Amino acid sequence: MKIAANNPELKSWVEVPPQSDFPIQNLPFGIFSVSQNNPSVGVRIGDMVLDLAKVSSLGYFDDLNIDASVFSQSTLNPFIATGQKFWRSTRNKVSELLQTGSSLEKDADKVLVAIAEITMHMPVQVGDYTDFYSSIEHATNLGKLFRPNGDALLPNWRHIPVGYHGRASSIVVSGTDIHRPKGQVKADDKETPSFGASRLLDFELEVAFITGTKTNLGESIPVEEAENHIFGLTLFNDLSARDIQKWEYVPLGPFLGKNFGSVISAWVVTLDALEPYRLASPEQNPQVLPYLQIGGERNIDINLEVIIQPENGVGKTISNSNFKYMYWNMAQQLAHQTVNGCNINVGDMYASGTISGKTPGSYGSMLEITWRGTKPVQMPDGTERKFIQDDDTLIMKGYCEKNGIRIGFGEVSTKILPSI
Amino acid sequence: MKIAANNPELKSWVEVPPQSDFPIQNLPFGIFSVSQNNPSVGVRIGDMVLDLAKVSSLGYFDDLNIDASVFSQSTLNPFIATGQKFWRSTRNKVSELLQTGSSLEKDADKVLVAIAEITMHMPVQVGDYTDFYSSIEHATNLGKLFRPNGDALLPNWRHIPVGYHGRASSIVVSGTDIHRPKGQVKADDKETPSFGASRLLDFELEVAFITGTKTNLGESIPVEEAENHIFGLTLFNDLSARDIQKWEYVPLGPFLGKNFGSVISAWVVTLDALEPYRLASPEQNPQVLPYLQIGGERNIDINLEVIIQPENGVGKTISNSNFKYMYWNMAQQLAHQTVNGCNINVGDMYASGTISGKTPGSYGSMLEITWRGTKPVQMPDGTERKFIQDDDTLIMKGYCEKNGIRIGFGEVSTKILPSI
Repeated sequence: MKIAANNPELKSWVEVPPQSDFPIQNLPFGIFSVSQNNPSVGVRIGDMVLDLAKVSSLGYFDDLNIDASVFSQSTLNPFIATGQKFWRSTRNKVSELLQTGSSLEKDADKVLVAIAEITMHMPVQVGDYTDFYSSIEHATNLGKLFRPNGDALLPNWRHIPVGYHGRASSIVVSGTDIHRPKGQVKADDKETPSFGASRLLDFELEVAFITGTKTNLGESIPVEEAENHIFGLTLFNDLSARDIQKWEYVPLGPFLGKNFGSVISAWVVTLDALEPYRLASPEQNPQVLPYLQIGGERNIDINLEVIIQPENGVGKTISNSNFKYMYWNMAQQLAHQTVNGCNINVGDMYASGTISGKTPGSYGSMLEITWRGTKPVQMPDGTERKFIQDDDTLIMKGYCEKNGIRIGFGEVSTKILPSI
Repeated sequence: MKIAANNPELKSWVEVPPQSDFPIQNLPFGIFSVSQNNPSVGVRIGDMVLDLAKVSSLGYFDDLNIDASVFSQSTLNPFIATGQKFWRSTRNKVSELLQTGSSLEKDADKVLVAIAEITMHMPVQVGDYTDFYSSIEHATNLGKLFRPNGDALLPNWRHIPVGYHGRASSIVVSGTDIHRPKGQVKADDKETPSFGASRLLDFELEVAFITGTKTNLGESIPVEEAENHIFGLTLFNDLSARDIQKWEYVPLGPFLGKNFGSVISAWVVTLDALEPYRLASPEQNPQVLPYLQIGGERNIDINLEVIIQPENGVGKTISNSNFKYMYWNMAQQLAHQTVNGCNINVGDMYASGTISGKTPGSYGSMLEITWRGTKPVQMPDGTERKFIQDDDTLIMKGYCEKNGIRIGFGEVSTKILPSI
C-alpha cells in the first residue's frame, strides 16, 4: 500500500490557516465529541475536525472494505487493530476526500465540526506503557548531576535502549489539570522521611509512539520490521516529582514520582505522515548487538518547544529541542522490548525518555535546565523558576517543516493545581 | 452486607473430596469454557464448576438485582465492577444455592461442569500491574547476596512498601508454557555484553491481589479503607531471568528480566473467603508515616509450597513458605500506591514480591534457596538445580486451614520450554 497522502502539492477545499500544524499532508487521528454525544473518531484538518463516522455513514468509505463500526468507538484501538493496510488506506482516502474538487465538499456541513465546538478525549486505551531513556545528552546530564565523581553514562547505556514499565492508568489527554502529588521525601540532612506535597515538580519533554498490532507471548519483532507495528506518535509530558523519585527509586526504579499524571497530545500523527521528515540516526559507538542493528533513516526531525505559562502572566519558552537527537530509535526500542518474547498490544505507548540536545537551551527537564535548581529560569514577570509552581501551565509543542509543508502535533497543555 | 458464606458448619449437596481446596466455604470465581463455547464466569466447588450464566438464566439470581450479562463475559472485570456489595451478595447467594437442601440440586446437570471438561482462562483483564517487594526476609537476603559489605536493607525499605510497575500484557494463567527468554547479559569478567538464552532462570513465589474498584486521577485511598477495594487474591509466579535482570536494571529497575511471562492461579479467592485466616501484621520498626498506619489483623495465614517437577521425573518440594510473613500488608500497599493521586482500575493486579520466611526451607526464589548457585538443590533423580532447567514444570500451591476447613488456591503451574 503506497502512502499517497504526503504529496506537498496537495490542496484542500477546507481552509487551512497559515502556520497550522494540520494541513492536508498531516491528517492525524483522534477521539472527539460534540456536546453530550458519544465520542468517535475524527481527523484534524486546519481548525476543523472531519467526523469519520459521518463520512462513513454517507457511503464515502464504501470501497475501503473496513468495518464501519470502528469509527464510532470511544478509542482508536478498534480502528488501529484493523492493521497497517487499513489505517494507511483510510488516511489515503481521507486525503482524497479533502482534496480540492472532491465531492465531499457538498456534504461539508454534515461531516466537519469546528474545533471550538468539540472536546478531545484520550485517543487510545493504553494497555501497557514503557518509558525509555534514549537521549544520550539527557542520560549524560543526569549522570553528571547525580554521580559527579563517576562515569556520566552507566556501563549498560550504550548497549541497551534502557527502559522501564510505567503506569498506564495515569496517562491523560492534553488539557487535563494535574494536582501536585503528595508523598514521602527525605532531606539529605534528615535521618527519617516526611510526608507532604512535592516541592520539586518537574516535566520531561518526550515523544511517544503507539503500537498498532498485537503479538503473542514468546514472539519477538525483528528490528527491521518494527516500524510496521507503529501506528503513530504523540507528544508526551512525563511529569516527575523529583523529591519523591529520589527517595523511592533505589533499587526498583521510578514509581510514585512518575505515576500521578502523564499527559499526551490529543492528535495521533501517523508514522506515515512523518515519512518526509526522516533523518539518519546518530552513529552508535560501540556497535550494538545484531538484534539492534538497523540502517536507513530512523530518526525524525521534529522541532520541540516547552513553555511555562504562569497564571494570568506572560509565558516563556524554556526549551527548544528536537526528536532527531535520540541516540536510540523507535525500531530499536520496540525490537528490544520484544526480544525476550514480551507480547505487545494495540494501543500500547512507548515514550522516548526526556529529549535533550547538547546545549542548555535544548534540555528537556527543569532538573537539567536549572542544573538542579542552581540556575533558575527568569520569568517575564520577574519571578523565577527552579521547578514548576502551582497554577503554572506547561505547554509542549512539536512540528516538522520542509518544502513549505508543516506537519505538527498541536500541543500538550497541563495546568498544575495545588495538592489536594 | 454480611459475609454469610464462611460458616464452617455449611455442607453442600455437591460432593467435595477430602483435602479439596474448594469446599463450600471458599467459592472462588474464575473464567472457564467448555469445548468451543465462549468463556464465562464460574465458581469452583470440589471438582466441579458452577456456571453462573446458567444459574442466572434459570432465574436463581433474580433477587440479586444484578445485570445478568456480567456472568457471560470473558473476564471477571464487569462482574467485579458491580462493586463490593454485589460481589459479596453473589457469593452469599451461590453459597445458599450450593447448601444441602437447596432447590438448585434438581438442576445440577444444567449448572455444574466437571473440571476435567473445562479450560480455564485469565480471570481478569489486567489494566496495570504493580510488583511490591514487601518481604523483609527476601529483601534482606538479596541485600546480603548483592551488597555483602553494606547494610542488607536499603534506607527506604522500612519506610516505604517499595514497588515498581510491571508489564500487564505478559501475565498469563496457570498451565501456560513459557519459553526461556533470550536477551543481553554481561559476564563479570567480560568488557561487553553478549546475546543469548538466559542461563539463570528463576521463579518468585508471590501472592497477588486484584482491585475491584475504579478511582479518579488525584484521589487517594486511605489505608483503613483500602481492603474494601480488594476483590480477591491469586498465587503469582514472577518468573525472573537473573542474568538479564542484573545487566539491565540499574538505574530504572527490572524490565526484560521480568516481562516474558508472569503466571497466576486461575481461581480468584475472594478476600471475603479469607476472612477467618487473618493474623496480626508483624511489628513495624521504626513506626511508619501516618498514611501507612493501620491496626487490626491485616496479614493472612496462607501456607505456600513450591515444587519443581522435572519432565518424566519425580517432583521435589523446594520451599514451604507463608503469606503471613509479609512485613507490608495489602492495605498499606494500596494506600501507598494511591497516596500521590495515582488512579486504580477494576482488574489491576498487585503482587506481594517474593515471599520468604526466616529459614532456607522457606525461601521464595532459587536465588535465595541455592544462595546464588552455591548450594544446589538435589533432585530425586540425582540431578541438581541451581536455577530452573528446560522442561522443568514449576508448581506453586497455597491454602489456609483452620477448624477443619481448608480454603485453597489450587495451583499455578508453568512448564519452561527451551528458548525459541
